[in-house]
Amino acid sequence: MVQVLIVYASDHGHTQQAAVAVAEGAESAPNASVRHCGADRVEPGDLSDADALILGTPVHMGSPHWEIKRFIDEVLGGLWVQDRLVGRVGGVFATGGGLGGAGGGCELAMLTMVSALVEMGMILTPLPKSTPSFQQGGLHWGPYVRCGSAAGRAIELPAPSLPLLRSHGLNVARVASLTAGQPARSAFGTSLSSTNGV
Amino acid sequence: MVQVLIVYASDHGHTQQAAVAVAEGAESAPNASVRHCGADRVEPGDLSDADALILGTPVHMGSPHWEIKRFIDEVLGGLWVQDRLVGRVGGVFATGGGLGGAGGGCELAMLTMVSALVEMGMILTPLPKSTPSFQQGGLHWGPYVRCGSAAGRAIELPAPSLPLLRSHGLNVARVASLTAGQPARSAFGTSLSSTNGV
Amino acid sequence: MVQVLIVYASDHGHTQQAAVAVAEGAESAPNASVRHCGADRVEPGDLSDADALILGTPVHMGSPHWEIKRFIDEVLGGLWVQDRLVGRVGGVFATGGGLGGAGGGCELAMLTMVSALVEMGMILTPLPKSTPSFQQGGLHWGPYVRCGSAAGRAIELPAPSLPLLRSHGLNVARVASLTAGQPARSAFGTSLSSTNGV
Amino acid sequence: MVQVLIVYASDHGHTQQAAVAVAEGAESAPNASVRHCGADRVEPGDLSDADALILGTPVHMGSPHWEIKRFIDEVLGGLWVQDRLVGRVGGVFATGGGLGGAGGGCELAMLTMVSALVEMGMILTPLPKSTPSFQQGGLHWGPYVRCGSAAGRAIELPAPSLPLLRSHGLNVARVASLTAGQPARSAFGTSLSSTNGV
Repeated sequence: MVQVLIVYASDHGHTQQAAVAVAEGAESAPNASVRHCGADRVEPGDLSDADALILGTPVHMGSPHWEIKRFIDEVLGGLWVQDRLVGRVGGVFATGGGLGGAGGGCELAMLTMVSALVEMGMILTPLPKSTPSFQQGGLHWGPYVRCGSAAGRAIELPAPSLPLLRSHGLNVARVASLTAGQPARSAFGTSLSSTNGV
Repeated sequence: MVQVLIVYASDHGHTQQAAVAVAEGAESAPNASVRHCGADRVEPGDLSDADALILGTPVHMGSPHWEIKRFIDEVLGGLWVQDRLVGRVGGVFATGGGLGGAGGGCELAMLTMVSALVEMGMILTPLPKSTPSFQQGGLHWGPYVRCGSAAGRAIELPAPSLPLLRSHGLNVARVASLTAGQPARSAFGTSLSSTNGV
Repeated sequence: MVQVLIVYASDHGHTQQAAVAVAEGAESAPNASVRHCGADRVEPGDLSDADALILGTPVHMGSPHWEIKRFIDEVLGGLWVQDRLVGRVGGVFATGGGLGGAGGGCELAMLTMVSALVEMGMILTPLPKSTPSFQQGGLHWGPYVRCGSAAGRAIELPAPSLPLLRSHGLNVARVASLTAGQPARSAFGTSLSSTNGV
Repeated sequence: MVQVLIVYASDHGHTQQAAVAVAEGAESAPNASVRHCGADRVEPGDLSDADALILGTPVHMGSPHWEIKRFIDEVLGGLWVQDRLVGRVGGVFATGGGLGGAGGGCELAMLTMVSALVEMGMILTPLPKSTPSFQQGGLHWGPYVRCGSAAGRAIELPAPSLPLLRSHGLNVARVASLTAGQPARSAFGTSLSSTNGV
């Protein structure tokens, strides 16, 4: 069984909808067990058995929602001290109005989350351009779904973005399935001698 | 057999020395076949069978040596169009004088290389803080080895950094060994239906 | 009179000490009026007359303290909608344990703050390497002060970093003095015709 | 007289066209003298009198064209050693196909150039969202012009992007006009005592 946890913050429900789509994709992988949870309700114990962690956020001023940042500081920070998620698998996604037509700061917002996952010692899952529906908001760091109108008013999560979000969830679960329970994952980040190079 | 290719640029030989240490670490993994090559001499065919690609650079003005950038543009760019390295494994390292004592721009330099690897659809290997010798120049993106004196004159690659470089090479080879030849790697970045969710 | 506001978050008091040093430097500029304030206590009105805004944070998991992020979302976000700080001057600084000896993620942490300031339409003040005491934690984005021991325990803010923090405060105030009250600052970000190119 | 230099790389002529538009905007500022030049033809002496430097690039694999990187390494690098451009003004712009609809890596590409300019000790000019035509490819770091069709074939530089490019050129020239020839610019990055706080 591969455990996937999706943690998100949401302003008007769009990022929550996106999290559900990512979860649906992850669930389509064999033997996957998937949960999604708001960033303000996650506790360290929720991460104990996670083989993969996916973070999702609306883009706020070019970086993630402060609730994602608080989760990173207060929940992930403690697990980082203990090297608890080393070798697990990570992924990210984002939503936003996309003002300006050039991503609206989504890249650095996703990178802030990527950086935290990588600092945990997690293996990062990309979003390859070969992924179906990539044209619907694909960036190599993960999906970016535009859910604002040109005038800035919120609209529904666009239906064409759903397959992309699902594919990303599946991709992360695929990588997690390759690493979960493997000796090399346990050895990851340890010394040469202690593991005989495995 | 897991194939690992290390591509580097070097000003005064330090980054080449670092590449050799990374290669030694990767070679300590079971069944690993490792090569290292200057960025100005790599051809697209050298990457055909690579299960992992590790990029190394001196930090120049806060980003990689221009020869690394030309390799990214002219060699990786062509393979990106063809989705040729999707699902392979990537890693990075850097060297530098470290002027200022705050990394000297090494983080964004490594991120430029990380971004290219992730854009290829490659799975990123982090450098967990649990890795032995992390204190000798470890950043979560990869090792950063200081090889300049305070006055800016080049000195020898410091010996304490060698175990960290070797551990990083081993870590990348470990992740590559988990993914090489697996059906899930072939399925990575493709549609749900075409792979039955594998 | 040039108004400079320094907003910071602090874990154990080090970043607050650093904010005081930055303030001292800004105050040494002619006609400067300087305030510093914790991020959890700033209100939008505090920024109305600010010619310069300097943000400071401890580095948490490779990005700013969540209280800085909440300030960016909830205070700066509202002012961004109104284009209220366009053409003002910005700067950043950070503190941290520096685990690993390669900056510990300080660059992306500073960039997250830089990105928010630039998104406000603010002019960014760098930290040139010619600045006195640059070797004591200088990064081009701003000063990074190490205030943790190798073992991770907090120690005093190192005295040699104080001149660097003061110089950065002065540098920001200098740029603010060049732009404050100038017609070109008011014209900044507006159309050509409405300002006759001024 | 305010001197503005625009340095660009170009694949199919789009970025050169964009550079011309940025130059037109800068020239509309009072007393501005503007030049634009391909990155492969700039010599260090061309930068001696520049009050502002604007870098433009096509986005290649999430970072600038390697010719821009070589210019940064070989031309700017030498001037960095001598602190020759400290206190001058910088700006950036980019062009690209925009595959994926989420910026296509333009943000990190612009940040690589921003980082080099900031490392030179240059004051960074943002692109405020209040700038006319911001919706035509505006990102806070600078304009990003999409010049590829959905299918990846190059098309003409879209006419609606021209006013945005011109406004950015004007914005940079405005900031340069505030700093050029001022004592505070000469003092920038020097010690407190040597300048009496000016």
